[in-house]
Amino acid sequence: MNIRNLSADVLERARRVKLLLMDCDGVLTDGRLYFTSNGEEMKVFNVRDGQGLASWHRAGYRSGIITGRDGEKILRARAAELNISHLKVRSRDKAKDFAEIIEAEAVKPEDVAYIGDDIGDICLMKLVGFPVAVADAAGEVFPYVIHTTEKKGGRGAVRELTDLLLAAKK
Amino acid sequence: MNIRNLSADVLERARRVKLLLMDCDGVLTDGRLYFTSNGEEMKVFNVRDGQGLASWHRAGYRSGIITGRDGEKILRARAAELNISHLKVRSRDKAKDFAEIIEAEAVKPEDVAYIGDDIGDICLMKLVGFPVAVADAAGEVFPYVIHTTEKKGGRGAVRELTDLLLAAKK
Amino acid sequence: MNIRNLSADVLERARRVKLLLMDCDGVLTDGRLYFTSNGEEMKVFNVRDGQGLASWHRAGYRSGIITGRDGEKILRARAAELNISHLKVRSRDKAKDFAEIIEAEAVKPEDVAYIGDDIGDICLMKLVGFPVAVADAAGEVFPYVIHTTEKKGGRGAVRELTDLLLAAKK
Amino acid sequence: MNIRNLSADVLERARRVKLLLMDCDGVLTDGRLYFTSNGEEMKVFNVRDGQGLASWHRAGYRSGIITGRDGEKILRARAAELNISHLKVRSRDKAKDFAEIIEAEAVKPEDVAYIGDDIGDICLMKLVGFPVAVADAAGEVFPYVIHTTEKKGGRGAVRELTDLLLAAKK
Repeated sequence: MNIRNLSADVLERARRVKLLLMDCDGVLTDGRLYFTSNGEEMKVFNVRDGQGLASWHRAGYRSGIITGRDGEKILRARAAELNISHLKVRSRDKAKDFAEIIEAEAVKPEDVAYIGDDIGDICLMKLVGFPVAVADAAGEVFPYVIHTTEKKGGRGAVRELTDLLLAAKK
Repeated sequence: MNIRNLSADVLERARRVKLLLMDCDGVLTDGRLYFTSNGEEMKVFNVRDGQGLASWHRAGYRSGIITGRDGEKILRARAAELNISHLKVRSRDKAKDFAEIIEAEAVKPEDVAYIGDDIGDICLMKLVGFPVAVADAAGEVFPYVIHTTEKKGGRGAVRELTDLLLAAKK
Repeated sequence: MNIRNLSADVLERARRVKLLLMDCDGVLTDGRLYFTSNGEEMKVFNVRDGQGLASWHRAGYRSGIITGRDGEKILRARAAELNISHLKVRSRDKAKDFAEIIEAEAVKPEDVAYIGDDIGDICLMKLVGFPVAVADAAGEVFPYVIHTTEKKGGRGAVRELTDLLLAAKK
Repeated sequence: MNIRNLSADVLERARRVKLLLMDCDGVLTDGRLYFTSNGEEMKVFNVRDGQGLASWHRAGYRSGIITGRDGEKILRARAAELNISHLKVRSRDKAKDFAEIIEAEAVKPEDVAYIGDDIGDICLMKLVGFPVAVADAAGEVFPYVIHTTEKKGGRGAVRELTDLLLAAKK
């Protein structure tokens, strides 16, 4: 990702972002769902994404996760390690959860970036100022984003996005 | 996968499908078998396949899994999450298990799609109206299918198939 | 792998094989070693390799695993599922373990295929009639094998080899 | 990696190395972080890296791991298996931990190789005589290394480095 290749519109939208919201499976992970025989689940994150979120938070910005699936304990452990401020699991109404988060953060939808990978993310992609898809997103989502990462979900897509956002602000 | 590239025969068979049956290892997973010292402990599914099956069920159709291997607890957890109606593990006679399922569903073999990846799946590929192989199936199965997905097992093959089936019905 | 592309020497050696011996990590697995926080290990096998070994055994031939690492319980579980006859773990003297196995099997070194991936396998590659490397083996081993699989370790290399051996015998 | 392609400077620095220090996540692993509901549960190493470290130690040299993240139990198990001499986890001041290790080893910074993958490794890359990045390191680190492996982290990068170091010394 070379920031020089981005359009003025993309850069302008990126500069405005104060809050980064993310889907989990397929974005912070590569979409693999690990089921163990004792009924537990496992999620596989990427150390490079974590470093990117650390840089994003250190620069004074905030982040959150909204997901339709479960995995609360796992996500709580990872969110705590990374200082992620908001966590909504088993979300049945993502627009409502989104409204709660931006009210708590006192930001406008235009101040938010959202990165997703599948049809369940389209409702939020329509709401935010900077909607983004991972490189290997389902084809249905691309009409709703203004930027697509070069990296795949769980393989550094979130790091690429935090790098982009921070570079745009310089 | 572009539905316009499919033959009239493939589309006609796809339109008729009411029940989607699947092998597990190598189809819903990428064929990796995770063993701890207690035996098999994990299976790794794909979130995108789950979204596809959710769309398939929401459209009023049903699905099932037939596998020769074990993994009952794991499969029961995943099947419950996705509302998969039939689950046959440790199947020693897949044709018999198939007969039971279609009787319970009151459908004909021509109304069934089956997706598999290896020689143990050929007996069912011969029985159903819409036999399908994943992209990375063993070479022996291709003579028995009328369609092959572009995606590999565990990497979105089932999602590609549910997308195809639903698109054909429109 | 197309058997027609194999030399007369390779085919002749393959035809003679009665016993298939395998290294574990990097051959039956892709070389990843899973360490859990409770001190357990996990190994990841491939369902397609298992199908190949099942065909090999059904044809009346036998197999075994020799490995320098531990993982006895895991390997015992997988070997039992696949009817693998010999299992030597923590092997400190692979040539001695090899001698024990071929004596028990009453076969000669020329009747044995061995598939490996790294320098620890060279001593056995020198002893058997049909020494094989996986596609992604360490460069040091290639001078000691007479065949290399197209598939990587843990990604179907063993299945490719059992297919080759059975095809050569036809 | 062909040692003939290396510059005289790289070879000279490699010849001097007595101690190999490594980051963990993204170097000894491919950067995937496996979380269950109990927190981090697994790390995935590479058997080929282990063989390389065994050769390195057999030649009389030593090694250590410095990481900013946790995973002490897992790393202790792997370090014990491989006879890795130094292990610093949750490192908040890597330069200080580095100073402790080289004092204990009675070596100079010029005698040390360090292999890393991300911005948290730059402070050590600046200190050692032979700073190395894995092939898939974050772009920010490349100005600080004098060599980059062809292999990715967790996919044999450490083995490639021990092969290089040992070859340079011949």
